[in-house]
Amino acid sequence: MTLVDTERFEKTYEKYSEIGRTDRDGLHRLTLSETDAAVRDLFVADLEDLGLDIRIDEIGNIFGRRDGTKPNAAPVLIGSHLDSQPYGGRYDGQLGVLAALETLRLFEDRDIDTSRPVEIVNWTNEEGSRFKPALMGSGVFTDKFETEEILSNTDRDGISVEAALQNIGYDGESPAKPMEDIHAYLEVHIEQGPVLEQNETNVGIVDGVFGMSWLEATIYGEADHAGPSPIHSRNDALVAAADAVTAIRRLSNRFSDDVVTTVGEFSVSPDSINVVPDEVTFSIDLRSYDDDTVARGVEHIEKELETVCEREGTEFELEELWRIPHTEFSPTVCDIVTEAATESDCSYQRIIGGAGHDANYLNDITDAALLFVPSVDGKTHNEAEFTEWEDILAGVDVFARATNQLADQN
Amino acid sequence: MTLVDTERFEKTYEKYSEIGRTDRDGLHRLTLSETDAAVRDLFVADLEDLGLDIRIDEIGNIFGRRDGTKPNAAPVLIGSHLDSQPYGGRYDGQLGVLAALETLRLFEDRDIDTSRPVEIVNWTNEEGSRFKPALMGSGVFTDKFETEEILSNTDRDGISVEAALQNIGYDGESPAKPMEDIHAYLEVHIEQGPVLEQNETNVGIVDGVFGMSWLEATIYGEADHAGPSPIHSRNDALVAAADAVTAIRRLSNRFSDDVVTTVGEFSVSPDSINVVPDEVTFSIDLRSYDDDTVARGVEHIEKELETVCEREGTEFELEELWRIPHTEFSPTVCDIVTEAATESDCSYQRIIGGAGHDANYLNDITDAALLFVPSVDGKTHNEAEFTEWEDILAGVDVFARATNQLADQN
Repeated sequence: MTLVDTERFEKTYEKYSEIGRTDRDGLHRLTLSETDAAVRDLFVADLEDLGLDIRIDEIGNIFGRRDGTKPNAAPVLIGSHLDSQPYGGRYDGQLGVLAALETLRLFEDRDIDTSRPVEIVNWTNEEGSRFKPALMGSGVFTDKFETEEILSNTDRDGISVEAALQNIGYDGESPAKPMEDIHAYLEVHIEQGPVLEQNETNVGIVDGVFGMSWLEATIYGEADHAGPSPIHSRNDALVAAADAVTAIRRLSNRFSDDVVTTVGEFSVSPDSINVVPDEVTFSIDLRSYDDDTVARGVEHIEKELETVCEREGTEFELEELWRIPHTEFSPTVCDIVTEAATESDCSYQRIIGGAGHDANYLNDITDAALLFVPSVDGKTHNEAEFTEWEDILAGVDVFARATNQLADQN
Repeated sequence: MTLVDTERFEKTYEKYSEIGRTDRDGLHRLTLSETDAAVRDLFVADLEDLGLDIRIDEIGNIFGRRDGTKPNAAPVLIGSHLDSQPYGGRYDGQLGVLAALETLRLFEDRDIDTSRPVEIVNWTNEEGSRFKPALMGSGVFTDKFETEEILSNTDRDGISVEAALQNIGYDGESPAKPMEDIHAYLEVHIEQGPVLEQNETNVGIVDGVFGMSWLEATIYGEADHAGPSPIHSRNDALVAAADAVTAIRRLSNRFSDDVVTTVGEFSVSPDSINVVPDEVTFSIDLRSYDDDTVARGVEHIEKELETVCEREGTEFELEELWRIPHTEFSPTVCDIVTEAATESDCSYQRIIGGAGHDANYLNDITDAALLFVPSVDGKTHNEAEFTEWEDILAGVDVFARATNQLADQN
């Protein structure tokens, strides 16, 4: 039987999903926007209702601490992120934060006093769509990025992270780093892939996550009139970029069977119907569980760009924005989660994840683990993202049980 | 010897080029913008100085009339357009208007009284980059488009043509149509192609202009996470669009050796680095001197879109925004221009043009002709657009002589 107070949890889920809700029941809640501010305010109010000790750090991460019977013991950290993709779904990130909130409420309901403190966290800018890089809050917290440097990053309108934090009043004073040892980190997230649904499994216990590289390519051609300029004399940046997109797609499942490649951002200049494009900038996302394969993929993309640019008489620049090696989560925490899943009334399996989560970075400074619940049709990062209620409840139940276990460990 | 007052003409050219000048000596003077307003004000002031009878019509076309000795005779219309492409050049359009202005000034200098009235015109929105369609002012004037419909067209910010005209005070009251018979229309324009320069010829007399089609394609895929969603399950709108761009490029020089195709506008949604694109919209520009070839090209593009979308599991819409048949200019006016070129001290040739100009539409309601001057390296629609001063002076000289001839015809 689930520990979750189903009615309360559903009500809370609906309330949070209203903030930034789209016409098609998705979420449009870009990091540090007015809607992000609104959901943060609600979150802080809920933490206050629980009597938690609230702390906001320099990068806007929000923490709420519930003391343990051994107040000086290293805490268990649980949470995820409340920001969304542009016109994204209501499960990505939000589920993890609300699972953690429900867990702390359950502890109150049942007068569970854990020996270790438990801290809930909402990480700033996991998505990376308004400001780069993604996993910003957890990345600063785990010393992957310099706070000062990240605060000066700007969005497309030239607004800095620092200004955006100030605008919404979440420029906290607490240093964005661990103030003590952390015993363990636990996060629940939607799978964002098709495996669990195909296997009809409620919960996935994630052994590790793909490594990845984010690249930005710019192709420089020459603007020209679409009418009288003969084809042989053109240096069309878009024609070269189209060839590159095709070549990058063909890299999928090359070198190893798990390579995935995506061109997601793409902009064309001058973007006029009768002018040959003179500049195209696009992003490349390349992933594999094998770090060498990622490295070889990046090298190969550079070769492909050389070839397409030679063909069209264009030039290019290629910059690697970000590289993250594959993650292997803590086997001991994974085992505790597996134990909790066995106690719970659900089906579960071990799995490899394709996407980076805040848990990846936390894994570097503590024993971290990640739980997945199924994504219907594997769909995510769009408004049609959906997880069956039964699976959500199973995931939260296992999550709460595992948190309780971890918080009572010596 | 050239008729042109070289010093005055250069000074005027510089003065007009200052309005909307870019850092790289190009022009950024989008139709009905504040900079367009400024250049229109200067133009109107120059027409007033010449004592012309000024008229502004409903679509913002500006006319200035110099009476003939037979005031009721059908006038000769001369001019071009003062708007530019985004970060375009200072010769496209502006040259034609300033050649017409210099022609009327020369008539004054030399006390030339033509028997027919001569009207100078600046056509609104020839470029079509802020508002569609291109050739808007001349198109409305020659009854290709309904005035009311065109006035309600909007730019990317949702501003209508009507509102933009009101904003800059060029919403004239004169009906946007001919109020009398027009004896002939003459325009000088840069070639925007490489032929004249390659042939070392000062002036081209244009026998005709390519027909063309403007299309807008939208490809619909499905947004998905760049990490865990397997390639085989993706419906990536950008991958399909890249295949389409490649197929459209391959259409160049198919069916006939003069076919040119260009994809100039291109936008991707949601445009996020780790999201599979769910929608791509792009423009297609297809041209040939043979109208059947244009028709076959459009049909073929539809087939290509079917194929690429079937391959990637995406869907598409294809809309033809605009079709214009090829133009054959008036042989009699072309002969008069040829005569004028013979009198002038320059080299000249007959030529076929690749781009549509206001002269194309005027050709439907009167005897029209078009002169070209060379474009260095054939470059146009960018800031590097350049025509040698010697060629410009030759072009204006031939233009002025031909206008004089036409205005004295019975």
